[in-house]
Amino acid sequence: MKALLLVAHGSRRQQSNDEVVLLADKLRKKCFMHYDIVNAAFLELAEVLIPDGIKKCIDEGASSIVVLPYFLNSGRHVIEDIPNIVNDTIKNHPDVDIRIAPHLGASDLMMELLIASANSTKQS
Amino acid sequence: MKALLLVAHGSRRQQSNDEVVLLADKLRKKCFMHYDIVNAAFLELAEVLIPDGIKKCIDEGASSIVVLPYFLNSGRHVIEDIPNIVNDTIKNHPDVDIRIAPHLGASDLMMELLIASANSTKQS
Repeated sequence: MKALLLVAHGSRRQQSNDEVVLLADKLRKKCFMHYDIVNAAFLELAEVLIPDGIKKCIDEGASSIVVLPYFLNSGRHVIEDIPNIVNDTIKNHPDVDIRIAPHLGASDLMMELLIASANSTKQS
Repeated sequence: MKALLLVAHGSRRQQSNDEVVLLADKLRKKCFMHYDIVNAAFLELAEVLIPDGIKKCIDEGASSIVVLPYFLNSGRHVIEDIPNIVNDTIKNHPDVDIRIAPHLGASDLMMELLIASANSTKQS
């Protein structure tokens, strides 16, 4: 089974973390054609952390996992921290194909999203 | 003239700030049908700050400005800090229509962006 693990930074503000979990819930309903399992995890400050998020996907039956960094900029978290944690975790699960997707800010669709967000103001 | 001001958090890592400015440059080329002026500004830690970003748009001839928060979560920055700064700045420019767009994470297109980012991994 294929899993998608949405990884956000994590916040001291619980509502921000809840938003990420809610987003993963929405995503699960939306992309069931692509992924059998969709979960959320956090780099720090919130539960579940990335290793536990990966383990949860595997416990639910995942044989491949795409880790998707829910980050806009290619800062240290995207370039170093998330890859380091994922690579450490991969060692414990050599039979699972775990890959890291490009962070959100790198998407070609970002332009369309920005323009749509800006334009939604004009209708208010 | 209509202006779009992309507002990011700002980082101590200059490359992250440069990415935002580069994104605004790309956006300028992409949405010239909608906005005559596109600039970037930062909440903190980087130049230019929001009041100066708004002033720059006005100096370039903007009579209306959409401030677009480049943020994924509806945290304190999106709910309080940016509106407070924008509302304070509006007082100095009563003849300019300045509005704040929904933050990026609120967009209906976010699902599509997430799925596209995840799927781009599978082709690698």
